[in-house]
Amino acid sequence: MKTTPCWSTSAYRGTIASENSVTRNTLGRRGRLDRMQPVTIDDVHAAAERVRPHVVRTPLVPALWGDPDRPLWIKPESLQPIGAFKVRGAFNAIAALTARDPEVADVVAYSSGNHAQAVAYAAAVFGLRAHIVMPEETPAIKVEATRTRGARVVLCGAGQREQVAAAVAAETGAVMIPPFDHPHVIAGQGTVGLEIAEDLPDVRNVLVPVSGGGLCSGVGVAIRALCPQAQVFGVEPELAADTAEALRLGHRVDWPIEDRNRTIADGLRSQPSDLTFAHLQMVVDGMITVSEDEIRSAVREFAVAGHLVSEPSGAVGLAAYRRGVTPPGATVVVLSGGNIDPRLLLEVLAG
Amino acid sequence: MKTTPCWSTSAYRGTIASENSVTRNTLGRRGRLDRMQPVTIDDVHAAAERVRPHVVRTPLVPALWGDPDRPLWIKPESLQPIGAFKVRGAFNAIAALTARDPEVADVVAYSSGNHAQAVAYAAAVFGLRAHIVMPEETPAIKVEATRTRGARVVLCGAGQREQVAAAVAAETGAVMIPPFDHPHVIAGQGTVGLEIAEDLPDVRNVLVPVSGGGLCSGVGVAIRALCPQAQVFGVEPELAADTAEALRLGHRVDWPIEDRNRTIADGLRSQPSDLTFAHLQMVVDGMITVSEDEIRSAVREFAVAGHLVSEPSGAVGLAAYRRGVTPPGATVVVLSGGNIDPRLLLEVLAG
Repeated sequence: MKTTPCWSTSAYRGTIASENSVTRNTLGRRGRLDRMQPVTIDDVHAAAERVRPHVVRTPLVPALWGDPDRPLWIKPESLQPIGAFKVRGAFNAIAALTARDPEVADVVAYSSGNHAQAVAYAAAVFGLRAHIVMPEETPAIKVEATRTRGARVVLCGAGQREQVAAAVAAETGAVMIPPFDHPHVIAGQGTVGLEIAEDLPDVRNVLVPVSGGGLCSGVGVAIRALCPQAQVFGVEPELAADTAEALRLGHRVDWPIEDRNRTIADGLRSQPSDLTFAHLQMVVDGMITVSEDEIRSAVREFAVAGHLVSEPSGAVGLAAYRRGVTPPGATVVVLSGGNIDPRLLLEVLAG
Repeated sequence: MKTTPCWSTSAYRGTIASENSVTRNTLGRRGRLDRMQPVTIDDVHAAAERVRPHVVRTPLVPALWGDPDRPLWIKPESLQPIGAFKVRGAFNAIAALTARDPEVADVVAYSSGNHAQAVAYAAAVFGLRAHIVMPEETPAIKVEATRTRGARVVLCGAGQREQVAAAVAAETGAVMIPPFDHPHVIAGQGTVGLEIAEDLPDVRNVLVPVSGGGLCSGVGVAIRALCPQAQVFGVEPELAADTAEALRLGHRVDWPIEDRNRTIADGLRSQPSDLTFAHLQMVVDGMITVSEDEIRSAVREFAVAGHLVSEPSGAVGLAAYRRGVTPPGATVVVLSGGNIDPRLLLEVLAG
């Protein structure tokens, strides 16, 4: 199926030029100094220095099985410790935190997914105590994995995680490490883009999954600064395409969580914050939405042709590539994570 | 199951010291100058320069799921173009060939596996015509994959491939690129070891699959030279453990091909040549043999815990690691390739 990206490049380039004030206003609403300034390429370079000892310098893997007119390269963040790009943001935030305040002993995060693992792992490496707030219905295997990394798991009722995390912070003095809504987290994820620019300076298209938007914001900042000829495309499941709609409308929108929860891509059910949305407005050229079937096909193609195991959320970039709607030229797909339930992998491979 | 490697380190170290003359005599039997000299670390460095533009600088991937006393790192050669380490040897051999003789226009190889793909791919990059000799019973999908790389496929009857390849060489002037029995091929594969030494200079154990022995010879040369504290272990399926027996006896042995063909690890059914055997005698500390069930478990563990798809031949190093017989300390497992039939992958993952 050939369609154009749902939110096209040309329309948006105009928006960037004419609505810079909107972007600044959006950022200004936060009221905290560190959130009023957009993340810059200097921030991403600083993050790269901080995370270098702790994360894998993933290669760009040439995919000979891509289309001839759009040579395909994979950025396999599934090879990071804990199996996802989230370690980059977590390490940058925690390293910056301990450098600024060596007395910090505790951090807290709420997540039942890759961010939980990343914060638990990074905290352990820095000798900090991590408190991870998870919903009571979190599968036991994920709770156990988090404890194995040395973290304290705090279970909470549905919809209470922010408030429980705040209570943990008040009680222990722990500093919150948000999953995407922080400049240090965005800059850390941006090191993915920095490495793409180093390895393939002539890149034309970069396809990045979008959930809370931290990864796409950071990658976009780096690519905009270093590869001005390249276009950055965000990718969402059709069932959680709030960001595509929001960027088309020019303001954040809220999709009911019951709707977003329908997608198999369980890591793409969040929505951008003011901070990440403002970055996405600045750095993204277009959004592509993909169906559930296309996501499953992409997981299969990654395994069979690319020898890489991806989680559904990690495979949406390849699904978007297969749509064939991006311009010709060297294309990088960010494979953001590999933590798929083995039973689901088996089911998807069986077709 | 805990056992010691079938051919132990201490016994062999003595052999290295006292039987250098045997090694030299073995090498000398070939009667060709370029085969009488062992591959050196300088050869591997030269190979690294030649292959750098063409192969992926694979990272060492930290496997948090390894044993605490033997921290585990994976060298994922499955991420190379064509999905296996073989491109390193093929590119080094072809680059050295064209540098020495710019008039060469044709190369020939016999293989139905990863070597065929590697030579076809490298030849195409260098603008050479590749003739690949394959047995008539080669699955159509492999024949087609080789043609897709631009190679001419020559089908031949069982047991005739060397003679058919020689006929192709005589007819076309093509130069033979052997799968392992050549110093340039060994040096090319040795760049895997060079990169391990660069990334983890304190490595204690390196586990490498052994078939014809080109990869293990090259890796061993590099590790011996750069990481003298490390031990290099070759790994074979129990059903094709000719090299373990040969190194124990001190001379090459011949296992019937019908026996070797029983292993699921279809890339590990060859046997060393005089050249590779002499190198293995110099650089390998011990051999570990693994069962078919252990190989299947390792394919599963690579996918589920490591997010990497491996072919059975590529997973034997992890199977050997799980034996728990290597000394404590940082351990690198070379995942040599990922080209597994999708149906077999599904079957193995289903357990």
